[in-house]
Amino acid sequence: MTSNRKWVYAFTEGDGKNKQLLGGKGANLCEMTQIGLNVPPGFVITTEACLEYLDSAADALPAGVMEQVQQQMQAVEKATGKGFGDKDNPLLVSVRSGSAMSMPGMMDTILNLGLNKETLEGEIRQTGDARFGYDAFRRFIQLFGKVALDIPDELFDKEFEAIKQRAQVSEDVGLSADDLKEISERFLKVVEEQTGQPFPKDPYQQLEIAIKAVFNSWMGKRAVDYRREFNITPDMANGTAVNVCTMVFGNRGNDSATGVAFTRNPGTGENKLYGEYLVNAQGEDVVAGIRTPKPIAELSTEMPQMATELEALRRKLEHHYHEVQDFEFTIERGTLYCLQTRNGKMNATAMVRTSVEMEQEGLITREQALLRIDPEHLEQMLHPRLDAGPDAKALAQGLPASPGAASGYAVFDADRAEDLGRTNHQKLILIREETKPEDIHGFFAAEGILTSRGGKTSHAAVVARGMGKPCVAGAEGIIIDDKKRLARVGETVIHEGDLVTIDGTSGKIYLGEIPMVEPEFTAELKELLGWADEVARLKVLANADTETAAERAVKYGAKGIGLCRTERMFNASERLPVVIEMIVAETQEQRQAALDKLLPMQRSDFKSLFKVMSPMPVTVRLLDPPIHEFLPSEQQLQQEIEDLRNMASAVRGVEVLDNTLSLLGKPDAERRKLAPLRQSLDARLVDEAIEKKISMLEKVRALVETNPMLGHRGVRLGITFPEIYAMQIRSILEAAAECVAEGVEIQPQIMVPQVCTAEELKYVKTIVDQVREEVEAAHGRPLSFKFGTMIEVVRACMRADSLVDEAEFFSFGTNDLTQATFSFSREDAENKFLPLYNEHGILQDNPFEVLDRKGVGKLMQLAIHWGREKRPDLSVGICGEHGGHPQSIHFCNEIGLNYVSCSAPRVPVARLAAAHAALLQGTGD
Amino acid sequence: MTSNRKWVYAFTEGDGKNKQLLGGKGANLCEMTQIGLNVPPGFVITTEACLEYLDSAADALPAGVMEQVQQQMQAVEKATGKGFGDKDNPLLVSVRSGSAMSMPGMMDTILNLGLNKETLEGEIRQTGDARFGYDAFRRFIQLFGKVALDIPDELFDKEFEAIKQRAQVSEDVGLSADDLKEISERFLKVVEEQTGQPFPKDPYQQLEIAIKAVFNSWMGKRAVDYRREFNITPDMANGTAVNVCTMVFGNRGNDSATGVAFTRNPGTGENKLYGEYLVNAQGEDVVAGIRTPKPIAELSTEMPQMATELEALRRKLEHHYHEVQDFEFTIERGTLYCLQTRNGKMNATAMVRTSVEMEQEGLITREQALLRIDPEHLEQMLHPRLDAGPDAKALAQGLPASPGAASGYAVFDADRAEDLGRTNHQKLILIREETKPEDIHGFFAAEGILTSRGGKTSHAAVVARGMGKPCVAGAEGIIIDDKKRLARVGETVIHEGDLVTIDGTSGKIYLGEIPMVEPEFTAELKELLGWADEVARLKVLANADTETAAERAVKYGAKGIGLCRTERMFNASERLPVVIEMIVAETQEQRQAALDKLLPMQRSDFKSLFKVMSPMPVTVRLLDPPIHEFLPSEQQLQQEIEDLRNMASAVRGVEVLDNTLSLLGKPDAERRKLAPLRQSLDARLVDEAIEKKISMLEKVRALVETNPMLGHRGVRLGITFPEIYAMQIRSILEAAAECVAEGVEIQPQIMVPQVCTAEELKYVKTIVDQVREEVEAAHGRPLSFKFGTMIEVVRACMRADSLVDEAEFFSFGTNDLTQATFSFSREDAENKFLPLYNEHGILQDNPFEVLDRKGVGKLMQLAIHWGREKRPDLSVGICGEHGGHPQSIHFCNEIGLNYVSCSAPRVPVARLAAAHAALLQGTGD
Repeated sequence: MTSNRKWVYAFTEGDGKNKQLLGGKGANLCEMTQIGLNVPPGFVITTEACLEYLDSAADALPAGVMEQVQQQMQAVEKATGKGFGDKDNPLLVSVRSGSAMSMPGMMDTILNLGLNKETLEGEIRQTGDARFGYDAFRRFIQLFGKVALDIPDELFDKEFEAIKQRAQVSEDVGLSADDLKEISERFLKVVEEQTGQPFPKDPYQQLEIAIKAVFNSWMGKRAVDYRREFNITPDMANGTAVNVCTMVFGNRGNDSATGVAFTRNPGTGENKLYGEYLVNAQGEDVVAGIRTPKPIAELSTEMPQMATELEALRRKLEHHYHEVQDFEFTIERGTLYCLQTRNGKMNATAMVRTSVEMEQEGLITREQALLRIDPEHLEQMLHPRLDAGPDAKALAQGLPASPGAASGYAVFDADRAEDLGRTNHQKLILIREETKPEDIHGFFAAEGILTSRGGKTSHAAVVARGMGKPCVAGAEGIIIDDKKRLARVGETVIHEGDLVTIDGTSGKIYLGEIPMVEPEFTAELKELLGWADEVARLKVLANADTETAAERAVKYGAKGIGLCRTERMFNASERLPVVIEMIVAETQEQRQAALDKLLPMQRSDFKSLFKVMSPMPVTVRLLDPPIHEFLPSEQQLQQEIEDLRNMASAVRGVEVLDNTLSLLGKPDAERRKLAPLRQSLDARLVDEAIEKKISMLEKVRALVETNPMLGHRGVRLGITFPEIYAMQIRSILEAAAECVAEGVEIQPQIMVPQVCTAEELKYVKTIVDQVREEVEAAHGRPLSFKFGTMIEVVRACMRADSLVDEAEFFSFGTNDLTQATFSFSREDAENKFLPLYNEHGILQDNPFEVLDRKGVGKLMQLAIHWGREKRPDLSVGICGEHGGHPQSIHFCNEIGLNYVSCSAPRVPVARLAAAHAALLQGTGD
Repeated sequence: MTSNRKWVYAFTEGDGKNKQLLGGKGANLCEMTQIGLNVPPGFVITTEACLEYLDSAADALPAGVMEQVQQQMQAVEKATGKGFGDKDNPLLVSVRSGSAMSMPGMMDTILNLGLNKETLEGEIRQTGDARFGYDAFRRFIQLFGKVALDIPDELFDKEFEAIKQRAQVSEDVGLSADDLKEISERFLKVVEEQTGQPFPKDPYQQLEIAIKAVFNSWMGKRAVDYRREFNITPDMANGTAVNVCTMVFGNRGNDSATGVAFTRNPGTGENKLYGEYLVNAQGEDVVAGIRTPKPIAELSTEMPQMATELEALRRKLEHHYHEVQDFEFTIERGTLYCLQTRNGKMNATAMVRTSVEMEQEGLITREQALLRIDPEHLEQMLHPRLDAGPDAKALAQGLPASPGAASGYAVFDADRAEDLGRTNHQKLILIREETKPEDIHGFFAAEGILTSRGGKTSHAAVVARGMGKPCVAGAEGIIIDDKKRLARVGETVIHEGDLVTIDGTSGKIYLGEIPMVEPEFTAELKELLGWADEVARLKVLANADTETAAERAVKYGAKGIGLCRTERMFNASERLPVVIEMIVAETQEQRQAALDKLLPMQRSDFKSLFKVMSPMPVTVRLLDPPIHEFLPSEQQLQQEIEDLRNMASAVRGVEVLDNTLSLLGKPDAERRKLAPLRQSLDARLVDEAIEKKISMLEKVRALVETNPMLGHRGVRLGITFPEIYAMQIRSILEAAAECVAEGVEIQPQIMVPQVCTAEELKYVKTIVDQVREEVEAAHGRPLSFKFGTMIEVVRACMRADSLVDEAEFFSFGTNDLTQATFSFSREDAENKFLPLYNEHGILQDNPFEVLDRKGVGKLMQLAIHWGREKRPDLSVGICGEHGGHPQSIHFCNEIGLNYVSCSAPRVPVARLAAAHAALLQGTGD
């Protein structure tokens, strides 16, 4: 500790990049000063001084600090022509804290330091404005008292209120200079009473106390808590600096003003100054919202010279920072000061537009244009947003499970949703306690889904995200009675047909229809993503199961379909009965008959997908889920059987009644009333229906599995029921042959799920070869397509070297692979222990959201290594949910994947993330 | 193809090791001849001749074959002093096929070749026994006709029966020489009729036809099918040889005999000739069982010289083959011939005893003594075996699910089993459709388990094997009605309390009690396994959860407990209520109260285990299964609630009745009858019970998991309910401290299940450290134990390098690891698709039975590599079911494990397998 150590830096000399030493704000002030912006003169006391002060036992600033402060103050005096403590032309300063990391609210600012009764007189003389002078003084005393002397605010407020009452005014502006003078005197008395000493008069004494107070605040409870909460470690920020800056006043008359502005419009990205200002006002007046500020455009009328200078400032800022700036300015008697600047926060639309335009202006490189946008933000642009306005009151709140907003008529079951959707073409919101695979036709029919149970990864959430439909899940405040077709939220009842609006981005639920902002795939976004594609090494494909989804994927720039889930097609309501027919078939013939009905449906599905995607690849995954998923649940069937039995009793009751009436010799007229009932209710038919349901129930029970996730599914089904896979393969190849005949260029790919050994692939390949031969013979032309496998079973990773004997491509199914690698069932884990695991830091992230590099990722790396060792041209992709998440995309890029495939709304996100990954690879990101 | 190629080898010159060239039987005859055994002279025509013959288009033997046959025949004539085709002293031969692999029944043998009407006369003159001559002739004609000329047996049988009928005899022996003569004449006529040619007279012509017939039989349907069925490829056996051997006759009078013998007793291993013989008989008479043979011991009285020679033969055989031999001999007029010898098949007891004794005699090395025993066979020795006898008729047949046999009284539910077991100390057989974890107390109470559903890997089978109790599973012929407490098999009804016997080794079920052979851990077995331990690199530990199991483990030579499953302790009937109390606890206090009750129970469990195993290690696995496994099932609770509701109605009915009687002014006498009912049935108590059950049902429903295998279990429970693990850890350490205080030497090991990341281990380690500190302070002495982890989650393999920061040992849980690696749920897979996978050859083995080297094994290798790279002294074991299976033990040895742990009855198997593994490592086994 030597007194010749440098503790204090003038704004003109501090290193604008050295935030650790000068704090963020200090470094910013230095940088602004040095690039020639008109910053009020001042200096920074370093964080090193802070740490030194806090380390020492004595309550004294390190030796030399105050000497250097005085030297710097003299320089400021020289620059401003004022004197610190000068009775005639006093220099007033602000004192602010500032560490390397922004820690909002860690310490308040002290303004107008340097005032005392004598300098106040000088200030009043200089400004000729006594009211201004006393107002500044009373503000200084209160802030200093509170911040530096620990005096409770209420004591000041009490005095202030007393004078306001006496003066019979409700607003501060109503107070006269005399009132304010009395207030400042009362404030001085409060300080003296509370501290036992008079208010410090000497400006340097004031400054020293203020500096110590700022330093001490670093170890204050608020700051310590904040650092713990946000995990700010000493290598990120250690100690706070103190910024001492000349006061400038926007309230020195009509040639003074204060304002905040963005160098470009943060809502639209328009290349035009955007902001507001107030003439004759202090910065705090803008914040307090007492007076309504004017749009910045008006400045050119009101103060044309200043407007020109502001425009120059704007250009200078962007030129220097290569980024849109959000800055504060003050005009004091015709002089423009820049007080602060930082990168502007913008919505996605503005980010995209400014990126493209700044690149075109040569302000930033294409690389910078891409890197400055967080890929996640792009998703915002592709969902309708609610424009709820301040008056809209949410009825309830759930989890934001699938982004976007939707309005529609409430409907409480999937069948009904389908009916209403088809017959009335109504917009609907499907409301359920929770959804099941058999509700899928309801998803198709609805604009959005609302559930009262389940989380962000519930069936409803996952399916809705897959379809890109808004979903609010787990809105527990809503009590649903689907039998009565209504839902209750407290006193409010939502009946079927009531209009509701859900916001899947916020999780809010509203009664009625709320206006919506439609998304647009702007020209700038298209341009930007074009650049991204040029840079990216990874191709981005989409997961899409329907023509509509495929069209969306193309619109969003997908380079093909990486995953088409055929089971989604099975679930369509007109097909499900046929699928069930296939499942419950007792003979090979019955099963084949059902498959023969499915074949043309699937063929036409594939044909339309091939056409939409032409000439890009379409990867069709053969049937994956356990077949019992297509059957109604045990519970549902039991209920239906009970209902039918009740009906049977009722029918028999009618018969008994009829017989009784007959025996009693009642006139035919009475019996005739029963006739329609007897006709519509045939006991024999009901009995038959019961039989059928019971037989279905038996089938369902036989298919129940202990661990369905690890059960009879995927290729295991394809091997036990080869006729199902044969039908699917035939549909694909016939569709392909028809497309080729029509001159449509296509790239079909057949993908086998749940593979664990090469023998499974060989088995399916045999079917493929046989069907191919037949289809080629029938159509008289050769077919070209690829055959590959999902890698979603751990053993497939281990056996990658032998799988490539059959597989031309690998597609990692990281959802299932993650479950198997962790032995976590996703549903069980996310409900029962994952949250606690995250809380305890046992797992940093939910591995179902962020790809687990060290476990799942390591397996992927091994599989790629072993696969390519034997088949160097092996194409490798990913089609799990991770494929649409930037962090995981970076990893996919790192380990050499060829493509990622994700749901259509994630395609733009993934394209940008893929570009980021290529640009940042090797930079340790 | 040159005529100077060697096609035929005399027994005196053929290479006894060259089975590919000479066939197994031919090589054996050569070897026996060349070591000086008295084998009747003969020669072998090679498999090369066979292939050459089959390859050529012409129906002609390769050039030179018959010339060489004649040369060899001349040598035989010289050796025997007889002439082939000689009218006075004819040489007769047998002709047999013989390929490198034994293919039973591929071709029949032709005996007495060389006979015709003329040589027959000579033979009769030589033997002075016309009946013998004609008998030999008719046999020759029939066999030659059938085998070489393709004449249906029935044609001969018809003639034979006609003569028997005419002679009015029922047995062949009743026929006179004349009868037999006529038969042979009729046979000759049959041949002439069928072939259109007279029966070949020339012996060389006979021989050539026979040789061709044998060669042709190689491509006959029977042989081709057999090779396909048993997957015999050309490199294993290609073509058949033909063995031509001088006939010797044991039926030439009272100085002749024939017999079969083992050089040692194959049932006990006793070092004494064991076998039977018949005087004046042919080999086929012994086989046909027409006369009762005499025990070999009697030979020393009947033919003392022959007995001495036989004893010399026995020594010679063992001395040469270094193995117990099963041989055939014939005595022709005082000359002993050895016709065949092969390694003797023995039961496990005999194998073990002969191994030990032959080693002691210096006949075999210790290594050979170990390697000649199949480890799997040892298990036979350790289960009681049924001694059912020929009259015992099995009532039904199921799958042999857990070896051993047991008799007991039938009981149809677990509670009842426990009651009867406790109060009556009866031996019981628990009979269920299938079993569930909550039946576990029934397993404890029963001697054996019988189920009508489920396979070898059903719950019943797995648990029974774990406990070493016999189990017959999936006996589908048994219809169980547990409400009525009976089972039906066709017309037979088994009521509760009826005596039944099950044989888990054969899968048979008997009514009544069947005598049992108790197992013995013989001195020889102890000796042999001692040698095994010296040779083995792998240590063998046992999976044991109770004191009894631990005692058994020690008896069987386990070197410690590698897996003690604490949940088995939880399931004990007096503890289950406390465990349930813990699970359904609504507050921390309630849960702690239940845990406080469990603590002393667990402590005493561990203490007794430590004592039994002292000074060997005891590895305690902390709680693993999902806690809902300890609760009754949803279905059961629903049933109980329904029953209680019915009871409530009944109670209210009694009240109504009582009130009604009162209103009707009925005398008190009648009402008094109701009093006891009213007292025993308190409606309020029933309602309370219903409430309680409903609350339990809700808890059960809340705990239901979609994929329990991948659910909330193992260390995940330990982290969400740390107080459970804390209790278990405290029990272990307090038990350890008490043992140490009592001077008992112990090695406790704490093992954490289901670990997927090092952070989980750290979390548990923190609890361990804290409890350790407290227990050490309370007992005033330091504790020494090891801390380690199961490796049963794939991610644990991937993170092995970081797990070793905390874990001092790894124990592979290959049951779960296999499930996760394949994404197969064992129960679902074995029921739904694994059998088909095996059938189609998609998987060679069931990976739950045979450790999957290429997938699971590769993961294990990676984990060991990464773990030891960082912690070279890491101890690694396996405690899945695979740990007791020889094939898997070889792999464990190969990849450098330190130990295997298996159920007690598998310990001897594993010890021997470990020795085999060490001896054979690197030999490609």
